[in-house]
Amino acid sequence: MQISKFMTPEIIFGNQSIAQIGESLRRLGATRVFLVSDLGVVNAGWTERIISYLKQQNLEYHLWTNVTANPKDYEIHAGIAEYRAMECNAILGVGGGSSIDAAKAIALLATNEGSIVQYEGVDNIMHPLPPMVMVPTTAGSGSEVSQFSIIVDSARKVKMAIISKSLIPDIAIIDPQTLMTKDKELTANTGMDVLTHAIESYISLAATPLTEVHSLQAMRLIAKHLRPSAASQYNAEAKQAMAMASLQAGIAFSNAILGAVHAMSHQLGGYLDAPHGEVNAILLPYVLEYNYIAAPEKYRLIAECLGENTSGLSAHDASRLTLKAVKELARDLGVPETLSAIGLHPEQIDLLSAHALNDVCMATNPRDMSVPDVAALFRQAL
Amino acid sequence: MQISKFMTPEIIFGNQSIAQIGESLRRLGATRVFLVSDLGVVNAGWTERIISYLKQQNLEYHLWTNVTANPKDYEIHAGIAEYRAMECNAILGVGGGSSIDAAKAIALLATNEGSIVQYEGVDNIMHPLPPMVMVPTTAGSGSEVSQFSIIVDSARKVKMAIISKSLIPDIAIIDPQTLMTKDKELTANTGMDVLTHAIESYISLAATPLTEVHSLQAMRLIAKHLRPSAASQYNAEAKQAMAMASLQAGIAFSNAILGAVHAMSHQLGGYLDAPHGEVNAILLPYVLEYNYIAAPEKYRLIAECLGENTSGLSAHDASRLTLKAVKELARDLGVPETLSAIGLHPEQIDLLSAHALNDVCMATNPRDMSVPDVAALFRQAL
Repeated sequence: MQISKFMTPEIIFGNQSIAQIGESLRRLGATRVFLVSDLGVVNAGWTERIISYLKQQNLEYHLWTNVTANPKDYEIHAGIAEYRAMECNAILGVGGGSSIDAAKAIALLATNEGSIVQYEGVDNIMHPLPPMVMVPTTAGSGSEVSQFSIIVDSARKVKMAIISKSLIPDIAIIDPQTLMTKDKELTANTGMDVLTHAIESYISLAATPLTEVHSLQAMRLIAKHLRPSAASQYNAEAKQAMAMASLQAGIAFSNAILGAVHAMSHQLGGYLDAPHGEVNAILLPYVLEYNYIAAPEKYRLIAECLGENTSGLSAHDASRLTLKAVKELARDLGVPETLSAIGLHPEQIDLLSAHALNDVCMATNPRDMSVPDVAALFRQAL
Repeated sequence: MQISKFMTPEIIFGNQSIAQIGESLRRLGATRVFLVSDLGVVNAGWTERIISYLKQQNLEYHLWTNVTANPKDYEIHAGIAEYRAMECNAILGVGGGSSIDAAKAIALLATNEGSIVQYEGVDNIMHPLPPMVMVPTTAGSGSEVSQFSIIVDSARKVKMAIISKSLIPDIAIIDPQTLMTKDKELTANTGMDVLTHAIESYISLAATPLTEVHSLQAMRLIAKHLRPSAASQYNAEAKQAMAMASLQAGIAFSNAILGAVHAMSHQLGGYLDAPHGEVNAILLPYVLEYNYIAAPEKYRLIAECLGENTSGLSAHDASRLTLKAVKELARDLGVPETLSAIGLHPEQIDLLSAHALNDVCMATNPRDMSVPDVAALFRQAL
């Protein structure tokens, strides 16, 4: 066994936990907070409520919402200019993975010079970041607990993975109530993203006993609660369970990294600006089929966590139930089934496959891949 | 569901991980390290090796080994005087729970004034502590990841629980190789301590989904590996598994707290200076029997994690197997079975029972207790 590392932020979880945002920032020494969010979250009323918590603690703030899905390098550069102009000294990210990844990238540039594209890859951050509190409103990206920030290099149209423990926020505040303003498509897509995090982190070459328990628990929660969560915006029990699933999957993948689904979907996000959760949902069954021979024993456990009955089955048949369970879930949720539906054209596949092979997440995929292997998977999912 | 909190240090786990001690301290800004250890660890050669890692990073150090089992307030006060006299600016604890708890208590007094007894209880630490790296050599106390430091108030002969997230070290380095210098009694006693952490944290009123996965995984590892670990000093696989079990149980109880076994055993440690692991091993079956009605469903899962076959059994019969499994493990390991064997006299029971009721760990015990309830358990275990 190699030496493994494990790290999480301080985590505050539960309904009404967002009321602790102000005191959490205060405790970290913040006086002037750069609040990164998006208009969906603003329109749902969450930022207004959160600003009231900042005011209660006499914190000054500046709200910045110029972030889009798949956040772009130029958005980050605009954000850091505004952070500096407003003389902020702490970052609060509120929203889905895009808002939180953008908030982390802005925090990075607050204390490290140059362009965000210089920091692509693992461990390229030199100076400690300002205090960061992250509040997810989707379940979700897991970015609130992860050492990842995924930003699009607009010149190359590539999603860069920036990975460093410096990007782990100081405090993650997860309030399941915020999930009640998500629509059913977003619930389904982000839920399939959580499932992808749970499965890819579990079969990752960098998985450890500390991450595996969280991956498996996330799968159990998803199997039981994702359908009901997508069925009703107001099912509080299901929202709470999915918030916990997202958190546990986030803890797992932050430390065990991911695999080929993410390496491939990052390319579609960068090149086509395609929605991350949706692309993952489409790719997951195909990549799982490909990866199967790398981890049949683990697939058996995945099948069991996803609610399949494996008793009396051969090892092979039991492990193959993972594929059945994932496909059924995707179908029940009505997520799209083809990449052409989200705009991929066959002539783009070779370029995107070459890029995917260079993505950091490919290094921990449990089965070796070549460019033709990746291209074949893209074609299957077309 | 209430709001829950979860926090761990940065964790580095694996054989040879102690080679990262020097750079870990350097990264935290240390230049002059106060190294807290005990003579057993020194004699096993670990401190010499660790000092070589400090020298490689050009770190100055001062070795301090004046700590005993159940560390006393006056030892801490002598330690902080020496820390100040040697002008250290970071703390490295190497050893069992006593060394690490002492190291954390000295760190506390490095930045917070007065006597260590002023800090008993929850959240009484005002100022941030100096950088702390902790390296356990028993599996174990879990103190390397916990927000606890347990120190004896010598005037009252009471073990004080000092609990604060400030006491969570910055970095925990767990190298299973260090377990190979433990004798079989210490392996058995500290292993039963790990089991107690796993079970008490799991049935604790403060358990959360984040802590439960670690409690249960610790139990599975103990069931499979504690006997082989106690059987051979050189079984590397068993040592690695027990190091992981101790770590996971530590993560669980740091965040979920413990229960009546610890509330009671702290009194015997404070009053009779009795070895912590041994006392826990004796008390655990009796307290489990008492707590049973609080959590029969959880007992069923504990039984399964401990390797019992519950299929076809009634809920009652399945859950009762927990008691059988724990007793058999204690017997197989040959841990003592009575408190009189470790020096408890009947006339001491009333006083110790009253003290136990005031211990912080009693607040999360899943079944209510009165002084006569505690006294009855002490008498059963006599």
